Amino acid sequence: MSVYLHDIPLKDAKAIFQSALEGAGLWRILGTETIPLDENTSGRVLAESIWAKISSPHYHASAMDGFAVRASDTVGALPSNPITLQVGPCACYLDTGDALPDNFDAVIPIEYVESLDTLGGITKVIRKPVSIRIRAAVTPWSHVRPMGEDIVKSQLVLSAGQVLRPVDLGAIAAAGYHEVKTSRPPRVAILPTGTELVPLGSTLKAGDILEYNSLVLAAQVKTWGGTPTRYSIIPDNMDMICKFVEEAAQSHDLVLLNAGSSAGAEDFSSKVVEKLGTLLVHGVAVRPGHPVILGLINLIGSSSGLVGNNPNPMQIPIIGIPGYPVSAALTGEIFVEPLLAKWLGRNQLELPVEQARLTHKITSPGGDDDYVRVVLGKVGEKKLASPLSRGAGIITSLVRADGIVILPQGVQGAEAGDIVDIHLYRSQAELERTIFCVGSHDMTIDLLAQFLSEHDRRLISANVGSQGGLIALKRGEAHLAGSHLLDPETGAYNLKYIHQYLRGVPVNIYGFVGRKQGLMIKEGNPKGIQGLEDLTRKGVRFINRQRGAGTRVLLDYQLSKSRIEVNLIQGFNQEEYTHLGVAAAVASGRADCGLGIPAAAQSLNLDFIPLFDEIYQLIIPKMFVETLLLSPLFDVIKSYQFKQAVADMPGYDVNEMGILVAEV
Amino acid sequence: MSVYLHDIPLKDAKAIFQSALEGAGLWRILGTETIPLDENTSGRVLAESIWAKISSPHYHASAMDGFAVRASDTVGALPSNPITLQVGPCACYLDTGDALPDNFDAVIPIEYVESLDTLGGITKVIRKPVSIRIRAAVTPWSHVRPMGEDIVKSQLVLSAGQVLRPVDLGAIAAAGYHEVKTSRPPRVAILPTGTELVPLGSTLKAGDILEYNSLVLAAQVKTWGGTPTRYSIIPDNMDMICKFVEEAAQSHDLVLLNAGSSAGAEDFSSKVVEKLGTLLVHGVAVRPGHPVILGLINLIGSSSGLVGNNPNPMQIPIIGIPGYPVSAALTGEIFVEPLLAKWLGRNQLELPVEQARLTHKITSPGGDDDYVRVVLGKVGEKKLASPLSRGAGIITSLVRADGIVILPQGVQGAEAGDIVDIHLYRSQAELERTIFCVGSHDMTIDLLAQFLSEHDRRLISANVGSQGGLIALKRGEAHLAGSHLLDPETGAYNLKYIHQYLRGVPVNIYGFVGRKQGLMIKEGNPKGIQGLEDLTRKGVRFINRQRGAGTRVLLDYQLSKSRIEVNLIQGFNQEEYTHLGVAAAVASGRADCGLGIPAAAQSLNLDFIPLFDEIYQLIIPKMFVETLLLSPLFDVIKSYQFKQAVADMPGYDVNEMGILVAEV
Repeated sequence: MSVYLHDIPLKDAKAIFQSALEGAGLWRILGTETIPLDENTSGRVLAESIWAKISSPHYHASAMDGFAVRASDTVGALPSNPITLQVGPCACYLDTGDALPDNFDAVIPIEYVESLDTLGGITKVIRKPVSIRIRAAVTPWSHVRPMGEDIVKSQLVLSAGQVLRPVDLGAIAAAGYHEVKTSRPPRVAILPTGTELVPLGSTLKAGDILEYNSLVLAAQVKTWGGTPTRYSIIPDNMDMICKFVEEAAQSHDLVLLNAGSSAGAEDFSSKVVEKLGTLLVHGVAVRPGHPVILGLINLIGSSSGLVGNNPNPMQIPIIGIPGYPVSAALTGEIFVEPLLAKWLGRNQLELPVEQARLTHKITSPGGDDDYVRVVLGKVGEKKLASPLSRGAGIITSLVRADGIVILPQGVQGAEAGDIVDIHLYRSQAELERTIFCVGSHDMTIDLLAQFLSEHDRRLISANVGSQGGLIALKRGEAHLAGSHLLDPETGAYNLKYIHQYLRGVPVNIYGFVGRKQGLMIKEGNPKGIQGLEDLTRKGVRFINRQRGAGTRVLLDYQLSKSRIEVNLIQGFNQEEYTHLGVAAAVASGRADCGLGIPAAAQSLNLDFIPLFDEIYQLIIPKMFVETLLLSPLFDVIKSYQFKQAVADMPGYDVNEMGILVAEV
Repeated sequence: MSVYLHDIPLKDAKAIFQSALEGAGLWRILGTETIPLDENTSGRVLAESIWAKISSPHYHASAMDGFAVRASDTVGALPSNPITLQVGPCACYLDTGDALPDNFDAVIPIEYVESLDTLGGITKVIRKPVSIRIRAAVTPWSHVRPMGEDIVKSQLVLSAGQVLRPVDLGAIAAAGYHEVKTSRPPRVAILPTGTELVPLGSTLKAGDILEYNSLVLAAQVKTWGGTPTRYSIIPDNMDMICKFVEEAAQSHDLVLLNAGSSAGAEDFSSKVVEKLGTLLVHGVAVRPGHPVILGLINLIGSSSGLVGNNPNPMQIPIIGIPGYPVSAALTGEIFVEPLLAKWLGRNQLELPVEQARLTHKITSPGGDDDYVRVVLGKVGEKKLASPLSRGAGIITSLVRADGIVILPQGVQGAEAGDIVDIHLYRSQAELERTIFCVGSHDMTIDLLAQFLSEHDRRLISANVGSQGGLIALKRGEAHLAGSHLLDPETGAYNLKYIHQYLRGVPVNIYGFVGRKQGLMIKEGNPKGIQGLEDLTRKGVRFINRQRGAGTRVLLDYQLSKSRIEVNLIQGFNQEEYTHLGVAAAVASGRADCGLGIPAAAQSLNLDFIPLFDEIYQLIIPKMFVETLLLSPLFDVIKSYQFKQAVADMPGYDVNEMGILVAEV
C-alpha cells in the first residue's frame, strides 16, 4: 500500500538499527550495578562470571551425626572383636556440619556406635559418653565432606549473562559473595500520543480510544528486565510530542513513542524523530506491525562531549510503535525484547517450538514476515493449530493465542493440513489440559469454559456453526461439538446430520440445553417488528448468521415454510459468527434485528421476540467419552451448580442437561 | 536409617497435609485484593473471571484513514464512470479509529479517493476537500470495525486463575476495567535456625556454615507469587525458636522453619511444632529431603473465635525444611510451590517433560521418591542425560542441573542407556546451544566455558578422565573430549589410544595446551618433598587421581619407570576427579601432596614442584567439526584474547592451540 512505500524487510530493519546502535556505542551491556545478594536479586542478569572466592565446604565437615575418629585406630574392629575408643583423645562427637578436628580423619555415624557411660553401661545415642565401642573398621575420609567437595576456591560457578534463579543465589553465596555485579536494568520511557486517546476509567464517547498500549508495553518491559516509565497521554501536537520526547530521552535509555492508530498520528512520530535525531527506518514488512519507526534521538548538550570511551551516549534509540494493540505488542516482542536482552547481556527470549497441523488455510501477502496467532490443541494423537483472527485491532486474539506461526517473507500462505512450526506461548502441560470444542456458538459454552477452568481444564471453543463442528469431529479435529441442527422433515435435532457427516465415527449425544430462538431488536422496538414477516419490510435492516450455523438452518427452514423471499430481506448477506455478534450489530444500530437467543439480547439490553424452541446438544466421539481429559466436563454438566447457573440465564431449559440421549 | 524411622511416602505426606489444611479451612484461595490495572499487575493471579463491561470497539470505528460514505451512494461507480460525493452531506474524512458518523455505513480508504479542492483540481491525500471522486462501489460496512468486533459486552475475556501476562492487561482494559480483583499474595516467614549458621559476609572459621537457605527459599517464594519475610538466624534454643515461630505465625500465612543441617537442630523443629500446634508428618520418603516436617501452629488468642466462616484462621501451616541446601530447595519445589499455587488459585507450575538417554547408571534405594539432577545435551540426534552428584550438600549440582529425573518409590534405579523422562529446568533453545565436553579436567576448560558463554554457547564439561572422554566419543555421547594420554612406548600423546578406543569414528585432533605436571604441596613444603621418590616416605600422605585420568596414566608410567612401589604410597587409593579436587585435599591438610597442574596449585596458594611436560589436546569427531554449534569454539581457541588469557595462567604453553595436529 502506498502509505507504507518504505516498508523494508524485517531482517534489514533489524540490521540497520543494530548498526546505528553500534555506531552510537550502544550495542553492548549498558552498565553494571553491584547489589546486595537478597531475594530481589532473582531475575537479575549476572554481569560478571562468578569464580569461587572460598571453597564449600570451607573445612572438612562431618557428613553425619557421629564420632570423629582416626581410621588407623579402627583397623581390626569386627562384630566379634569390638574396639573401645576413649572420647577425647581418640573420638569426638560431631553434629552434621561440624568441623573435623585436627588429627581425626573419619566419622562413624552415631547409629554404628555403642556409647559407654561412666558406669560402664551401654546405651545408644548418648552424645557425650566417656568412651565408645565400634564393631567395624572405617576407611579414611568416610562420612566426611572434604573441603571443596561442592565448590573449590577459584572454580567457575556461574557465567556472566545468567538470568539468576533462586538456586543460583545459593551457589553465589556458597562461593563467598554477599553482593553481586548485575547489569543495570534499562530505563524505558513509554509515551502514548493521540488526541483520540483517553485514560482507563474514563466515561467513553464514540471515537474515544482507551489508552492501554502503554500498559501492555510497560508490563512487557518489566517482564523483560527493564524499568518502564509510563507517560500520560500526549495530544497530537508536534511541539508537545517533541518536548516530551526530549525530556524522556534525557533520563532514559530508550523511548517508545506509541502513535495513535491513525496514519496521521504516525506521521507525527516520524517527523518528531526526523526533527530530534535520525530517522533510520520508517515502515517494516512485518504483519501486523507495518508502521514501525526506528531512529536515534540526539541528546541535548551532549554534542560537546567526547565520543570515544564516553560512558554518556550522545544519542539514544527511539522506536515508533504502531497504534493497533496487536501490532504494538508484537513490535515489543520483535524490537524491544532483543534490545533489552543485548543491554542486559542475556540471551534473547526464545519461545519453544512445536509442530502442529493447521486446521484452516492461512493466506499471506507474501511480501511480509507474517505473524499468525493460533490456538493449539491435542485431539487424540493429532496436534492441531487453528488460526485466530488476523486483525491488528483484536487484542483478544493475543490473549487467546497459544502460539504464533511465522510465515516468512516470500511465503504466500499455508494450506489446511500443513504441518507448521508453532512458537509456543503456553506450556505443554497447559496444552495437554485443553478441550477443543468446535461448533455452534451458545453463551453457555463460555460459562462451561469458566466452570471447567476451576477443574483444571481449558475449554477452547471455535464458533464455526453446527455443521462445521460435525465436520471437525469427522476430521478428528475436536473433542466435542455443540450442535442444534433441525431436520425439517422430522422435527428432530442433529441425528440426520450426524448420520450424514459422521459416518464411521461412533458418537454419544448428550442433552445440553433447550433454548428459545427469536428476534433481537432495539430496546422499545422502534421499527415495530413482530415476526419474520417484517424482515422484508422496507427500512428494516436484518443481520444474518453464517451459512452452516444451526440458527441459519433454522431461519432458512422457517423462511421457506413461511414462503418469505430472502432476496427481499435487506442485509441477508451480512453475516456474523456468534449470537453476540448479531446482538452487537443490532445494539450498535448497524442492523434493526437478527435471529438469536435471549441471553445475547439481554447482555446488550435488547428486546427479544421469542419465536421458536430448539434443542442444543453436545456431540462427543466415543473415543473421548472415557478420557481423563473430558471427565471434568461430565462432572460439570451433571452438577447442580452449573445447571443452576445456566437456568439463571434467560431462555434456557436444563432438563436434559448431561443425559445420554443417543449413541450413534 | 533409624533416624528417619517415621518416613512416609511423599504422596501420603501431601495427602495428610492437604487434609489438615482442609480441616483448618486453609485449602482455598487465601483472599483477594482489588488493585489498579498497571504494569505491576503482570504476574498476579486473576481471582475473578473477567466478563466484558463494554464492547471493543465500543462504537463503529473506521479501520482506515479514508472517507465515510453511504454504500448506497456508491452503487454504479466504475473506473470509467466516477461518482462525485460532496464532503459534508455525502462524505466525511475519518482517521483510523474515528467513529463512523450516523447515516454513514462504509469507509473508502484515502488511497482510493480522488480529492477535489476548491478550485476543482485533483490532488491525492488532501484530507479536507470540498468533494471527493471515487471509481468503485463499496459494500456496506467495508473498512469499518463494527462495534464489538474484538469484544462484545458480557463476553468472557479471561477466566479466574489466569497468571496475568502483559497482553492480558490490555484485554482487561479493553473490556472496560481499570482495576482488577487478584488473589492476595501469601505471606511466608522464613526462619533459619542453627547455632552453627553465620550470615553472608561473615569472616569464616571452621564449623561456621553460611546461611543462604533462607535466601534461596525467599527467592523461590517471590518467584512463585508469595511475599517472603526473612528472619535473622535463630540459635538452637527451644524458647527462642518458639518465640519467633509464634511471632511469625501472627503475621504470616505460612512459616518455613529451616533447621540447621544437623539431626540435633532438626529435633528442635519437631519439638517446636509439637509444642505450638500439631505435628502432622515427621520425615518423608523423598531423596534428597527426608527430614521434612509438616504441621500446624495454633494462633494465640484465636481459640475463642468462630470456626465456620471465620476469615481469620485459628491455625497456620508450618513446614520444617531440612538444612542441606539441595534438600531445602527441593522441599520448596515439592511442598511450598503447590501450597502457594492453591492459595493463589492458579495451576501448579509444571516443568516441561522430555525424554533422554541416560549416560550413566543411577542407583536408588527404592524406598524413596528419588529426585536425581541431570545435565542434558544433544549430541547429533541423541538426547543425553548425565546424572550429577547426588549429595544433598552440593548446591552446584542444582545450579548445573538442566533437569531432574524422578525415580518413584519402588524403582531401584535406572541403567545407562535407559530412556527416562526429564523434567526440564532449561528451555529447549538453551539445550540446543549446549556443547558436551567429556574427558580430562583442565582449568582452561572452565575458561573456555566462560569465553563460549559470550558467544551464545553453553559448554558442559564432565570430568571423567581422558580415557572416559574417548569412550564417550565412541558412544556418540560427547561433541569433544580433552585428552592427554601418554603412550609410554613412543612418548606421543593420544594417537595410540584414539586408534584403540575410537575405531570407526573419524576425528580431528587439535592442539590445545602444553602444560606442566608436578607435585602440589603445602606452602613452604613442611614435609620437604622433592619428587616422586618421596611419596613412599613414612608420614607423607598422597592424594591420587582416578583411574583413566591422563594424570594417573602419567603417574603410573613415571612410578614404574622409577621403580617406585605403589603399595608403599600412603593414600594411593584416595582418588579425586579433578586437579582442583587434589589441590583442595592438599590445601586442607587431608593429604601432603598430589600430582597436578600449576594453575590448580596457584588457585589454592600451594607450592608446586614441576616434574613433567605434557600435551593436552582436543579430540573432535569429524561429524561435529563443521557444525554451527561448534563453530564459536574454533573462533575462541584461535583468538588472541583466549590464548592470552590461558597464557596468563601459570604453566601453560599455547603455541599449538587451535592447530589441526592430525586427522584420524
